[in-house]
Amino acid sequence: MSALKSLLEKPAEWLTGQREESEMVLSCRVRLARNLDKCPFTHMARPSALREIGDEIKPILQKSPSLEEAFIINLNEISEPERMILMERHLISFDMVKNFRNRALVVQLGEKLSVMINEEDHLRLQSMESGLSIQQAYEIIDRLDNEIDERLLYAFSENLGYLTACTTNVGTGLRVSAMVHLPGLVLSNEIGNVIKSLSNVRFTVRGMYGEGSEAMGNFFQISNSITLGLSEEETVKNLETYVSNLLEFEKRAREDLLKEARSLLEDKICRAYGILKSARLVTSKEAMGLISEVRMGVGLGIINTVSIADLNELLIMIKPMHLQNLYGRTMGSRERDRARADYIRTRLG
Amino acid sequence: MSALKSLLEKPAEWLTGQREESEMVLSCRVRLARNLDKCPFTHMARPSALREIGDEIKPILQKSPSLEEAFIINLNEISEPERMILMERHLISFDMVKNFRNRALVVQLGEKLSVMINEEDHLRLQSMESGLSIQQAYEIIDRLDNEIDERLLYAFSENLGYLTACTTNVGTGLRVSAMVHLPGLVLSNEIGNVIKSLSNVRFTVRGMYGEGSEAMGNFFQISNSITLGLSEEETVKNLETYVSNLLEFEKRAREDLLKEARSLLEDKICRAYGILKSARLVTSKEAMGLISEVRMGVGLGIINTVSIADLNELLIMIKPMHLQNLYGRTMGSRERDRARADYIRTRLG
Repeated sequence: MSALKSLLEKPAEWLTGQREESEMVLSCRVRLARNLDKCPFTHMARPSALREIGDEIKPILQKSPSLEEAFIINLNEISEPERMILMERHLISFDMVKNFRNRALVVQLGEKLSVMINEEDHLRLQSMESGLSIQQAYEIIDRLDNEIDERLLYAFSENLGYLTACTTNVGTGLRVSAMVHLPGLVLSNEIGNVIKSLSNVRFTVRGMYGEGSEAMGNFFQISNSITLGLSEEETVKNLETYVSNLLEFEKRAREDLLKEARSLLEDKICRAYGILKSARLVTSKEAMGLISEVRMGVGLGIINTVSIADLNELLIMIKPMHLQNLYGRTMGSRERDRARADYIRTRLG
Repeated sequence: MSALKSLLEKPAEWLTGQREESEMVLSCRVRLARNLDKCPFTHMARPSALREIGDEIKPILQKSPSLEEAFIINLNEISEPERMILMERHLISFDMVKNFRNRALVVQLGEKLSVMINEEDHLRLQSMESGLSIQQAYEIIDRLDNEIDERLLYAFSENLGYLTACTTNVGTGLRVSAMVHLPGLVLSNEIGNVIKSLSNVRFTVRGMYGEGSEAMGNFFQISNSITLGLSEEETVKNLETYVSNLLEFEKRAREDLLKEARSLLEDKICRAYGILKSARLVTSKEAMGLISEVRMGVGLGIINTVSIADLNELLIMIKPMHLQNLYGRTMGSRERDRARADYIRTRLG
């Protein structure tokens, strides 16, 4: 069985949603950007240099205890739809779907830990966890970073810290982010004000698939914007505080909605569930919105016949390439909408 | 138990929808307008005259074999909400809800046969049947008409026929109508053209509650406009032909929709069913539209877990006054929307 097939057999472990705050925090992610010393950055490197960089990195990753059960997937050895599946699983960037030559992904079974090779930086270490376990994700990635550091010379400046292709990453090379689910703030039209009031040059709010992506299904990705002048521990702590504040606002918004418009809210949520269980055609965008409403319903105790984990998994499984993979064939948009509706009905029984 | 309570215990028999064409024809109705000879028409009569007219008519109706199991309901003896229930059941006119003094309804259990006393005319005989059984409804009402005629002198002119308060009823005093369900023609945007192409001064197309009412839920009431110069038999035959033609158009529209947009149609129908089974708040108008779509789904074999009869009954039961009666209390609009949604969910299991 190919590495990719083994990977797709199970949902990613960070989707399990078993933590207390999982109703409102889908997952968190810690990423470290690292580059090899004395090698041109990816965007400056010729193909032969990229190949050499990859050849240097791969054996080292294979020897890292943290990546004991990991696969190496060379992106030129898989098809574009397969690369898109990896992107839908948040394992590689959109850029790597198209720029795949001499690029590779090293990923641990369960997908909690992975490394992109020759993305914007030579190494992009990524750790994903369920809920707001940023500290835990940070510890895992810090261990891997140390393991690599023992065997490889990183591009590093005493003054600036880790050197990276983009200046926003210079310093710790650290980006921590949380995928939060804020339907209460969206429904009560408060999301804009809350984000503005919490706004801080140190944090960025984006859609589910990062830069430039829309906030579909009321999911927002919150991440730090600055890596220079702050320790890694401070960065982690700051994001935890920021997200915790956001969750307080979301909780209050949900309470207010329940108090002021309980029946409207129940109606909205139950209809969303009813439509998911009965539609025969559904677009990815509509499905995201409906799943988002049901997800809030589970959080509020209005719906109890489906779990947060199942809904999290649905969010990934209904993506176009995942559906095609599931049905084993390329599908047009209408056919996919039908397959998506069928799949959702089966899953929600 | 009061007459009204006995009546409300069971759905009207004309809702049973067991005939072949019942998918597309909810019911048909035959009505005869009659007046007593040498008495002022209702709108010209003083209260004392109206009382006398009622007193003359009631014993005669009670002796009619056709009305053996009928109740007399004096409209001043019941409340306005109760009168509205009778209107929602198509037993009395909207006008009689407000103008109820010296007015009465005589209605056979099962509601297939009834007589309004002192509506626009002194006597309005009405027979309702399931499906397109106009001939059958006509025979039933003709029998009652003859029974009354033996004991009462009708206002009649050799030249004009039966004399009525409104000139459009002069002649036979006959109005035949069918309540048709045409979602296929509405969905395919052909309804306007079809009605225009079949248009004929002899027929009128209206909404579900007659004159001035909106065509909610894709239900249309087709009736003859002219009563003068045509025999009763011709009038019945003509309407049967007109409605049969309309049904052919509806059938073709449904076939075309299935051929050209089967998945869209299935999706629409299944979503409507899903929403009805899950909503927590639903207005009367939305419910009518959703029931209409599910009804078409039953007709097309897409839905087979609910019967036409159940859906027909729902159309009446979800009306505001029926709901209040069911829940035994006066309700505001929001509370009614919730009660309606609850009732529908219970009925659709």
